[in-house]
Amino acid sequence: MKNLDYAYLGPPGTFSEQAISAYCSKYGGKTHACDSIRDIVETIVKDEVDLGLLPLENSLEGSVNLSLDLLYKHSELKLYREIVLPIAHYLLAAPGVKKEDIKKIYSHPQAIAQSGDYINRHLSEAKIVYTDSTAAAAAEALKHDDRAVIGSIRLADIYQLDVLAENLQGDLPNATRFVLAAKADKDFSDKNHLGNNAESQFKTSIICAPEVNRAGVLHEMLGEFAKKEIDLSRIESRPTRQRLGEYLFYIDLMGSSEDPDLIEALNEVEAMSGYFRLLGSYPKTVIK
Amino acid sequence: MKNLDYAYLGPPGTFSEQAISAYCSKYGGKTHACDSIRDIVETIVKDEVDLGLLPLENSLEGSVNLSLDLLYKHSELKLYREIVLPIAHYLLAAPGVKKEDIKKIYSHPQAIAQSGDYINRHLSEAKIVYTDSTAAAAAEALKHDDRAVIGSIRLADIYQLDVLAENLQGDLPNATRFVLAAKADKDFSDKNHLGNNAESQFKTSIICAPEVNRAGVLHEMLGEFAKKEIDLSRIESRPTRQRLGEYLFYIDLMGSSEDPDLIEALNEVEAMSGYFRLLGSYPKTVIK
Repeated sequence: MKNLDYAYLGPPGTFSEQAISAYCSKYGGKTHACDSIRDIVETIVKDEVDLGLLPLENSLEGSVNLSLDLLYKHSELKLYREIVLPIAHYLLAAPGVKKEDIKKIYSHPQAIAQSGDYINRHLSEAKIVYTDSTAAAAAEALKHDDRAVIGSIRLADIYQLDVLAENLQGDLPNATRFVLAAKADKDFSDKNHLGNNAESQFKTSIICAPEVNRAGVLHEMLGEFAKKEIDLSRIESRPTRQRLGEYLFYIDLMGSSEDPDLIEALNEVEAMSGYFRLLGSYPKTVIK
Repeated sequence: MKNLDYAYLGPPGTFSEQAISAYCSKYGGKTHACDSIRDIVETIVKDEVDLGLLPLENSLEGSVNLSLDLLYKHSELKLYREIVLPIAHYLLAAPGVKKEDIKKIYSHPQAIAQSGDYINRHLSEAKIVYTDSTAAAAAEALKHDDRAVIGSIRLADIYQLDVLAENLQGDLPNATRFVLAAKADKDFSDKNHLGNNAESQFKTSIICAPEVNRAGVLHEMLGEFAKKEIDLSRIESRPTRQRLGEYLFYIDLMGSSEDPDLIEALNEVEAMSGYFRLLGSYPKTVIK
């Protein structure tokens, strides 16, 4: 059994790296840092890795919109697994630095935004410096004793930083959802490669657009799922670029695409769609 | 008639500033730069401005998710107008700098991501430097003759930069959608304050969550709109923080909340909701 190769949005210390490292330490596999989500997709397409980790919901680093757009654009891709990472922001600094010494806070704009309540209350005088990842922020924070970084607890391990405060994210969304994408013709039938699926409830993701955009068309599509009592776990409309003002629907459904009821509902929805694509049917791993 | 005050995500030269400046040059009003979306909302809540501009779709600077979460959190806010800004990315540099001189490209991570195809084709050797706004990038680009910035054409005016290339965004989404939010008790009944509404088709935005999450419940809700032939222009589910795994739906409908059919449909949806809020009913301004 060969180890699979996984591309992720680097550098080490990002939330993406935290998710893929935890996953690989459980199921095996080698990780490869990419500079951007676009690079992850290209690396998969060029067969330089087996799978890539893409953020699909509440991402702190890397645009969810870009992931959705690239999945739409690259019809050779398929989703093989969902990975859910609980979000916890930590205030970290070089050893010996105290909270009252901090004059500058380094982090990714999204992590700063999510920690805004904490910063306003406790560090309102500090200057904010934006970086392209929380990992890049940690490298900066190490250099001076008046700097702190906001990021995952993993940064503390990698960069040998002290924890000054935890759970800065307050009441904001508490998990990032990623997916493992690979070419649709890949065969990961050795279940061990992608972890144990037996205990996990499957999700099925589709992208579809109605043949004609008119009032009630989404209601009719969802009616096919309602008839079979299939639960939606997420829905989002995104504008198509081809036809201005027309929409694609990204829909996640509870259940496996091997379930006869789901197959039947998907066939009905495909029949009323101008564009339809099964992105994949996959189990979930929650990182503890 | 007094001039209204508008908060936006600064500094000058961001896409937010481009949108609000174009709006105010047509309808009057003073603009106030804020450091973050959170600051915009606080400034509105504290009555320091009349309205604030929040990104709601395809935002390049500032998180759409954060806007949605803050609108949900601050029930005293209401939406008064939609502003749509076409996106066009330009490659800009200090006067005299040529494309072949460029060793570093400065911009906001989202603008870099949206221009990825162009960068890969034409500037693959350049080092990418991330900034918290395209405006901050422009200030950096001015300092050396081996630097360029990616951002709006407005940066060229503000920072006296030359245009080296245009429409870097390729086939990616072609507009950012903002909303003007203000306290719900504000009276902007002098129509001139917020522009001419007569010619614009209204949209109505709601946030709702079903009483009980079960298969088919979204289908039932949307059925009320389908019955009245009311078209949805956008739908997105977002996790609620209060109850893990449960969802809020953000729905935009075509039509005014003064339309009897829409009122009736909204009443039915509210009756089947555990949480329901009318975010507002508003006209649209498209920036040319």
